[in-house]
Amino acid sequence: MIVLGIDPGTAVTGYGVVKKEHLGQALLIECGVIRTKPRDTLAHRLREIHAGVTELIDRHRPDALAIEDIFYARNVRTTIVLGHARGVILLAAIQAEIEISEYPPAEIKKAIVGNGNATKQQVQFMVSRLLRLKTAPQPSDAADGVAAALTRLMSAQLPRIADELALLAARR
Amino acid sequence: MIVLGIDPGTAVTGYGVVKKEHLGQALLIECGVIRTKPRDTLAHRLREIHAGVTELIDRHRPDALAIEDIFYARNVRTTIVLGHARGVILLAAIQAEIEISEYPPAEIKKAIVGNGNATKQQVQFMVSRLLRLKTAPQPSDAADGVAAALTRLMSAQLPRIADELALLAARR
Repeated sequence: MIVLGIDPGTAVTGYGVVKKEHLGQALLIECGVIRTKPRDTLAHRLREIHAGVTELIDRHRPDALAIEDIFYARNVRTTIVLGHARGVILLAAIQAEIEISEYPPAEIKKAIVGNGNATKQQVQFMVSRLLRLKTAPQPSDAADGVAAALTRLMSAQLPRIADELALLAARR
Repeated sequence: MIVLGIDPGTAVTGYGVVKKEHLGQALLIECGVIRTKPRDTLAHRLREIHAGVTELIDRHRPDALAIEDIFYARNVRTTIVLGHARGVILLAAIQAEIEISEYPPAEIKKAIVGNGNATKQQVQFMVSRLLRLKTAPQPSDAADGVAAALTRLMSAQLPRIADELALLAARR
């Protein structure tokens, strides 16, 4: 299973592509950012983001896209503009007919660190551990995209583990 | 000049296509709504809206798209979801490389009625008058799309009038 995780933003959209190997080990395939020009209009930036995500989907053929749920930033205008970016990202996923998983920020922290109030540093440390990287993905937007992708991979493991427990129980 | 005016919404997106004829008279070519299914996910609805607007652009080949600026609804979540819809509409316009004009609601009312605090009924009445229609476009979302398109047509007339005044002044 391959998951494309996205941390949306109109200026910088972070992404991470992770794959589940045999034995459930997660492997980082690629991460990075889609950066738009500050002088461009919002419409031009949305086109860049949509084209960038579409290109990632075409290249990696992920089974699922994982993205942070709508959150309420302190600045309402920022949150509304972010909604525009999320809109074109969800569009790219649905146009490619891939599954979409949305997670509130606290759920991503809980999945990665085990604590919904974890700090950014704790999330980055655990992302590195889980993927056996020497350092956390850079910049932090890329690490946030990777964290979203890992959350989807790990939530997918739960039913599998439950199945195995059921199998073990049935064997007894 | 042909203008496609849009009143964005995730459930109902209104639109109006208007054309400026000789002597500056505005003509209504088509109006209506793009309606999405309440049971569909947001991503599916965004795909419907993007496909619908793209189809209108392909069919009418407008010179410009006119749309209400981001406004702050009483419900923040509603406004953020609306941002997603606006995102895919702006994307459709920029992908077709047509000009985009955004107007705050008060500016549309001022352009159509001459008063930024005009009621919905006053706007609909004036839209009918300007387009020589017997009744206002239905439903009201369609009328709002038409009003946005007319605002763009009328703002385009301003420089022309200014030019003519300058010409008259030069002739004296």
